Amino acid sequence: MAKLLALSLCFSFLVLGATSFSFRHQAEENVCQFQRLIAQRPDNRLESEGGFIETWNPNNQDFQCAGVALSRLVLRRNALRRPFYSNAPQEIFIQQGSGYFGLIFPGCPGTFEEPIEGSQEFQQRPQDTHQKVYTFRDGDIIAVPHGVAFWIYNDQDTHVVAVSLIHTTSLHNQLDHFPRRFNLAGNQEQEFLRYQQRSGRQENEGSNIFSGFSEEFLSHSFQVNQDIVRNLRGESEPEEQGAIVTVKGGLSILSPPERKDNDNSIEETICTARVSMNIGKSLPADIINPQAGSLRTANELDLPILNHLGLSAEYGSIHRDAMFVPHYNLNANSIIYALQGGAHIQVVDCNGNRVFDEELQEGHALVVPQNFAVAAKSQSEHFLYVAFKTNSRASIANLAGRNSFMSNLPEDVVANSYGLQREQARQLKNNNPWKFLVPPQESEMMIRTVA
Amino acid sequence: MAKLLALSLCFSFLVLGATSFSFRHQAEENVCQFQRLIAQRPDNRLESEGGFIETWNPNNQDFQCAGVALSRLVLRRNALRRPFYSNAPQEIFIQQGSGYFGLIFPGCPGTFEEPIEGSQEFQQRPQDTHQKVYTFRDGDIIAVPHGVAFWIYNDQDTHVVAVSLIHTTSLHNQLDHFPRRFNLAGNQEQEFLRYQQRSGRQENEGSNIFSGFSEEFLSHSFQVNQDIVRNLRGESEPEEQGAIVTVKGGLSILSPPERKDNDNSIEETICTARVSMNIGKSLPADIINPQAGSLRTANELDLPILNHLGLSAEYGSIHRDAMFVPHYNLNANSIIYALQGGAHIQVVDCNGNRVFDEELQEGHALVVPQNFAVAAKSQSEHFLYVAFKTNSRASIANLAGRNSFMSNLPEDVVANSYGLQREQARQLKNNNPWKFLVPPQESEMMIRTVA
Amino acid sequence: MAKLLALSLCFSFLVLGATSFSFRHQAEENVCQFQRLIAQRPDNRLESEGGFIETWNPNNQDFQCAGVALSRLVLRRNALRRPFYSNAPQEIFIQQGSGYFGLIFPGCPGTFEEPIEGSQEFQQRPQDTHQKVYTFRDGDIIAVPHGVAFWIYNDQDTHVVAVSLIHTTSLHNQLDHFPRRFNLAGNQEQEFLRYQQRSGRQENEGSNIFSGFSEEFLSHSFQVNQDIVRNLRGESEPEEQGAIVTVKGGLSILSPPERKDNDNSIEETICTARVSMNIGKSLPADIINPQAGSLRTANELDLPILNHLGLSAEYGSIHRDAMFVPHYNLNANSIIYALQGGAHIQVVDCNGNRVFDEELQEGHALVVPQNFAVAAKSQSEHFLYVAFKTNSRASIANLAGRNSFMSNLPEDVVANSYGLQREQARQLKNNNPWKFLVPPQESEMMIRTVA
Repeated sequence: MAKLLALSLCFSFLVLGATSFSFRHQAEENVCQFQRLIAQRPDNRLESEGGFIETWNPNNQDFQCAGVALSRLVLRRNALRRPFYSNAPQEIFIQQGSGYFGLIFPGCPGTFEEPIEGSQEFQQRPQDTHQKVYTFRDGDIIAVPHGVAFWIYNDQDTHVVAVSLIHTTSLHNQLDHFPRRFNLAGNQEQEFLRYQQRSGRQENEGSNIFSGFSEEFLSHSFQVNQDIVRNLRGESEPEEQGAIVTVKGGLSILSPPERKDNDNSIEETICTARVSMNIGKSLPADIINPQAGSLRTANELDLPILNHLGLSAEYGSIHRDAMFVPHYNLNANSIIYALQGGAHIQVVDCNGNRVFDEELQEGHALVVPQNFAVAAKSQSEHFLYVAFKTNSRASIANLAGRNSFMSNLPEDVVANSYGLQREQARQLKNNNPWKFLVPPQESEMMIRTVA
Repeated sequence: MAKLLALSLCFSFLVLGATSFSFRHQAEENVCQFQRLIAQRPDNRLESEGGFIETWNPNNQDFQCAGVALSRLVLRRNALRRPFYSNAPQEIFIQQGSGYFGLIFPGCPGTFEEPIEGSQEFQQRPQDTHQKVYTFRDGDIIAVPHGVAFWIYNDQDTHVVAVSLIHTTSLHNQLDHFPRRFNLAGNQEQEFLRYQQRSGRQENEGSNIFSGFSEEFLSHSFQVNQDIVRNLRGESEPEEQGAIVTVKGGLSILSPPERKDNDNSIEETICTARVSMNIGKSLPADIINPQAGSLRTANELDLPILNHLGLSAEYGSIHRDAMFVPHYNLNANSIIYALQGGAHIQVVDCNGNRVFDEELQEGHALVVPQNFAVAAKSQSEHFLYVAFKTNSRASIANLAGRNSFMSNLPEDVVANSYGLQREQARQLKNNNPWKFLVPPQESEMMIRTVA
Repeated sequence: MAKLLALSLCFSFLVLGATSFSFRHQAEENVCQFQRLIAQRPDNRLESEGGFIETWNPNNQDFQCAGVALSRLVLRRNALRRPFYSNAPQEIFIQQGSGYFGLIFPGCPGTFEEPIEGSQEFQQRPQDTHQKVYTFRDGDIIAVPHGVAFWIYNDQDTHVVAVSLIHTTSLHNQLDHFPRRFNLAGNQEQEFLRYQQRSGRQENEGSNIFSGFSEEFLSHSFQVNQDIVRNLRGESEPEEQGAIVTVKGGLSILSPPERKDNDNSIEETICTARVSMNIGKSLPADIINPQAGSLRTANELDLPILNHLGLSAEYGSIHRDAMFVPHYNLNANSIIYALQGGAHIQVVDCNGNRVFDEELQEGHALVVPQNFAVAAKSQSEHFLYVAFKTNSRASIANLAGRNSFMSNLPEDVVANSYGLQREQARQLKNNNPWKFLVPPQESEMMIRTVA
């Protein structure tokens, strides 16, 4: 109930206090002037020992307009995505699977102490100290700040599928708008390198950050011998091993304590901040219409670190033939990724042109630019999607239904704006009693019941 | 007096607390490197049934540098500008006339309840519920946030003239920098479409947002019949009707309670925020020099919603032959629109070049970029202007007069910087005892008295 | 100790309160995609009567990527850099010398009152009133906000050398990204004019702001005669006099009270804000390793006005053959200026390419873009540098050493990421017990001892 308010009371922050934000900056001329939008699948796959990474071309106009880059990670059992950091804030949605992940916040202390593996002699051996390890499961949104190193591991049989959005035009990215992965281990090309338009390629490219430093610098800095330095630089491994390695026997790690999603205690510093929350189908939604579907959001009110990132997300489930009414994103670009099933989506630009009118299919992503109007009708038993939003308090303006634009106009303004009789205006304002999601038309329900 | 302080104590916010802001982002290379600035009139007019809309070309270099788009709306009696929203924050100055307007804040409840028109049977009939309706009069500044729908209506004989500024390079606009009007009713082209440089035009363009959705989607979402949907999509009306319609018999609306301009109570949320204030000539000014003129500003201290928009405004009245001393805008671009009369204005760039040296005439607009120095001498009995500023706490640095740059330099720094004797330096610092506005020279006063 | 925490606890501000910031906006495509970085000296010198100004070309790709412009000012004895303001926030580091400077904050009152020079008859003569005058000495960082006029004076025999960074892509600059000096006195070209790429040059260019106004406007505004106006406009002096004049007999000014660097009282407004602090070698550092060197930073916690500017700085001293371990700037671009001696620096991009691998020599500047990894080894007895950072709370992520990325990874993640044995992983994590700075290798120490 409180969450429903949060979703709809869009930007009540105004007088309540100053809000730090990290909107984006868009420079390229006309980059949001579309003839049409295109729903897209990844166009490249980088195979690794333990799984693969798929990427969408960040140079596509849709992504350029939204200022984002998208990729998808698949981890097989015992697969470890080795650590990397990115030049912009990131949201990762766990589409499937579960396991562990870690973030290395620069300057924060290592607070986890655990006995060394296989050690019987607990007291005698030194403990391993490291920063917090987190568990994840499907439906989780993980917030990864710019410059914070991240690793993730699958300890189950089910493949882990994780969809990641980088907000490259965030003000936190002080480089140009290109997405960058800084790999901290391995001997593989960073996943967005192939999309860079550069005059010439350098010879030693396709390695991790440490491979760029000289052996002398590394051995001095780490106080280790040449053998270890070679591994640090990724020299002793084939490029095919890639970003994801398979851990033989499984990763030995202190099992982190169970996460409490309802923990709303105030975090003192970034070092102890919550970095993930679940918005998947297993939890009660923020908006539920039993005949039509449900919505659940993660924004800065739910997960304060999102304020720092300038991002939020929405998880939706829409029943067959039910509709998400025409609406627009007030203050964010929205990147819809279809998790399961399909939906017929229409998107309309400022000139009244329909720039998208297709089924969005499972595994495809669609950019809906800020203020463009959008509506959807589910074509599956349960159309499931996640929408990444480029604002930590993204809000929606509904054009139809209860408490929508139309219902909040004075009746006589409706009548005169649309050339309607007062009685017709009243229908336009009030006939739809639902918010956000509308159940299937009765005719459609009939057909389905008969069939 | 408190306001005078506010105008001049430019950015004392520093240590007092964090301030959210929404400055702009400017990308195009050299876009502010002018050979000369050009005062401009609108270059296009879109006629409608009830009035017309004039636009300045947003592609002009001056507007590109300032990151703004300007337009002017004229409403005849009983004319309704049908609802629309824009992709960036907006300030509207009411140059003439009075009437009603409405804003539809997404997520905010409808708080106005009124009996249905002509209804005798008050108790029996349902009331109409809608969001707040506001009155306006000449001299008002109206703040319209990005994505918030707006309509305006003239219930008087006097034409309403409203000048509107959109801050397209605001960080709140996550699209490209082009100004966009999303019309929510009618069958007309949005007012800035003609300035878009696009490869090809689409066939159905020139309609409102709803015309981009299919009839099926609309009838399902609004639960209304095909007749109503056709009107919603603007199909049943000629394009000539345009954005402004004439309401036969006048708009029937609950007269909103009188606005209290002095109401400084803290707004709890955006839903109850004040959205307008008067800075016109009927009110006491912030700065008054009876022999020279007066200034009045609207910034985030007066109207807190401006903090959210990142905009402010200044209204000025300058007597004939009086001067606004050389000054610069510390932290904002300024767009001066001449309301009445004319003034001789000089603008100087960082290289000491005079890039403007003309009379700014009634109805013309002049961009004065941030930090460029500017001075004006009125050539009319009362030169009236409004200046839109791209900062919610825009501040001015005076170069001459009391408490100016010059008067705050140590005397010996003045003497040595300008190669003057101490006595001359003292004159340069102290001879002008006025702030901002200087009365006519005595010689000029003499001439006028004699003539 | 508290400062050490500040340096390393990088962005703990998150939940503690909203923070206003002024990151930059970067638009030019690919502007940070380097084949290699280039350490640079100034490429132009403008001679003046009392000293000279050297500039780095702001159109170089490195500076374009970082969104900054760099210049260096040299003042001989009794030299006064005449007042000017800039279109973006600025940090000035005093490399050498001492003297006075002033800032003219628009709207702030003149709070210094002093007797007129040479006046015996104290009571009879009027006092001179002006804004605060500050002292400076070597090692000072001076914060100069956008649009705030600044002058500086050398009252000693030692030349003053001041290095200045303008953050042109700061959101506070609403013009294009070009650096601009608005000279308020003199008859010389502003120092960055020569780098502007413009179609045609105007005739009267190369003068101060006042020279752009007509005599009529100036005499009216200042209420002074034509002689004074001519000096105001710089007409009566040769261009060769330049931006820096020599004050015959020395500047007569009220000696400001001694600055207290430890004064941590809260400033009420910008008018009374501290604008400088010392980070030079004479003070205790934030991080000290007696065998390796020391670091000291100035950020928004030390000097609150930096929060308003969006800038900070770091002063470092590294002993011969000691190393600054591989690290990256989490949230800022860094511009390293070598003050004394030289160091071997390596910089690595996101693709693992070494884009810099040279000695950074005294007087050269090197841009290290955000998130690029960098390490340095001193080649002088004491390599001294200052690093300007484009974030008011810039933070560093160390890749090696105590509390680094590597030491905060779980041991088994290290082992599996780098294909190491557990024992080797433990060495990689823990062998280097130092933070930031590592003493020379023993072999090197031996050589030096022997030699």
